[in-house]
Amino acid sequence: MSASRHWSGDPATILRVGGGFRLSDVDPGSTPGFEGGKADGAAALAARVPELAELQERLFARSRMGDDTRRVLLVLQAMDTAGKGGIVKHVVGAVDPQGVALTAFKAPTEEERAHDFLWRIARRVPGPGLIGVFDRSHYEDVLIGRVRGLAPEAEIERRYGAINEFEAGLVAEGVTIVKAMLRISKDEQKSRLAERLDRPDKHWKYNPADVDERSLWDDYDAAYQTVFERTSTEVAPWHVVPADRKWYARLAVQDLLLGALESLDLAWPSADFDVEHERARLAAS
Amino acid sequence: MSASRHWSGDPATILRVGGGFRLSDVDPGSTPGFEGGKADGAAALAARVPELAELQERLFARSRMGDDTRRVLLVLQAMDTAGKGGIVKHVVGAVDPQGVALTAFKAPTEEERAHDFLWRIARRVPGPGLIGVFDRSHYEDVLIGRVRGLAPEAEIERRYGAINEFEAGLVAEGVTIVKAMLRISKDEQKSRLAERLDRPDKHWKYNPADVDERSLWDDYDAAYQTVFERTSTEVAPWHVVPADRKWYARLAVQDLLLGALESLDLAWPSADFDVEHERARLAAS
Repeated sequence: MSASRHWSGDPATILRVGGGFRLSDVDPGSTPGFEGGKADGAAALAARVPELAELQERLFARSRMGDDTRRVLLVLQAMDTAGKGGIVKHVVGAVDPQGVALTAFKAPTEEERAHDFLWRIARRVPGPGLIGVFDRSHYEDVLIGRVRGLAPEAEIERRYGAINEFEAGLVAEGVTIVKAMLRISKDEQKSRLAERLDRPDKHWKYNPADVDERSLWDDYDAAYQTVFERTSTEVAPWHVVPADRKWYARLAVQDLLLGALESLDLAWPSADFDVEHERARLAAS
Repeated sequence: MSASRHWSGDPATILRVGGGFRLSDVDPGSTPGFEGGKADGAAALAARVPELAELQERLFARSRMGDDTRRVLLVLQAMDTAGKGGIVKHVVGAVDPQGVALTAFKAPTEEERAHDFLWRIARRVPGPGLIGVFDRSHYEDVLIGRVRGLAPEAEIERRYGAINEFEAGLVAEGVTIVKAMLRISKDEQKSRLAERLDRPDKHWKYNPADVDERSLWDDYDAAYQTVFERTSTEVAPWHVVPADRKWYARLAVQDLLLGALESLDLAWPSADFDVEHERARLAAS
């Protein structure tokens, strides 16, 4: 639920993948629900940082004193250059790093490939009180996995159900899952890759393999469409966030995260000691 | 090396533990080398965030493209309430979380206790390109370990040398180690603990055991003094940072971190691909 006057609706509702969703209907350059421009967006993002930081601290506090084991898991998926890193830096980076557990999943190692695809994922589920962030995730195993044929067809098919069961289990144990796919256009990606080539301080972010993946853009779109149809569940829905405008994507994901934290109703935990008694002990120390 | 006009000297030199150092000579309320007040300190801290963020990104970039495996490890030690958490939040938290590996060491688990005291430490040494932060560290094993007699005297004695060898090994493999002890006064700690008792939103940070440790303040001082005498080495010196003024401690640690990064001479890495060729491929994609 958004508090900003610029929002005409709740991004969690507007961007949510429901029945009949078509990825091709999403305009990557649009700013659904936000009636302002870049400067308004940047101001709105900054304005809500204190709220996000306090909710994160409350979540953390409740895990440290008391027995609240709940946590939040933000799953970010996107084509290269879509801005996952910027969201980690500018949205997640605004809260206390002690309360964040970030995992950037790369191509699986040999050890990881010897296990079920969810093995390495389960090991990185955030602990009580934390905001976990997956920069890429188990969804790679039905995205690049499907497009590049990294596993047999039947295994890929099996995974959608396995993912839903896995996520339902997380939700049941107190993980609030926020799944966001950042949607950029193929043209915008080209321009962002070109910028990486033009700037020596961005060369390190450029990977020639990214151009190879561009030739499979439509296949990735189809794989994402299937992901949305099969894994946008009631307990862990997907959100598709138009991301050609970085400021909008950041703001929208911040709002999704705020909504998830607000839904947890996070009062400060009660003291598990006698405050007056401790005052006396401290005074005498 | 500080760039701020408020510094009259380099904190890395001024705060460094050298021969003849006495912990009791450090005034926790002082601001060595800084000729300004709280507002100047806050401004100086903010002013150098872009520099710190860029150096962190350069360090990270060089590990991703090219073969630079160097990293930085910030080791923070202090009595409770001295402000380690604030430094993580306000100094380290200002850089991209993707480039930071933070570990808060708690009392060792049963599994950890079954191994040598450095076992769990070695597993958390930051990987190439990262800034690692140890919130508490292997030094606990010669601090609370000594004060509370958690290991035989001979074992505690053995550890100083083991630590020096361990750290020399890290330095040899490319880890720049920054060791900072935040020094608060016993009175300041009392007032910070009292504040935690007074504010319901701070109760979760209060631990009755902290008052027990206060009664051992002098023993901890003696244990720290021994740590400084035995483990402030040429390759990994200690710095003692007066911390009754939080703004000063943050600024000083930021400066130590900046100095460490500057010493690495971090040019942006060169492209490991043919830029013109990639431009053509991208244009055709």
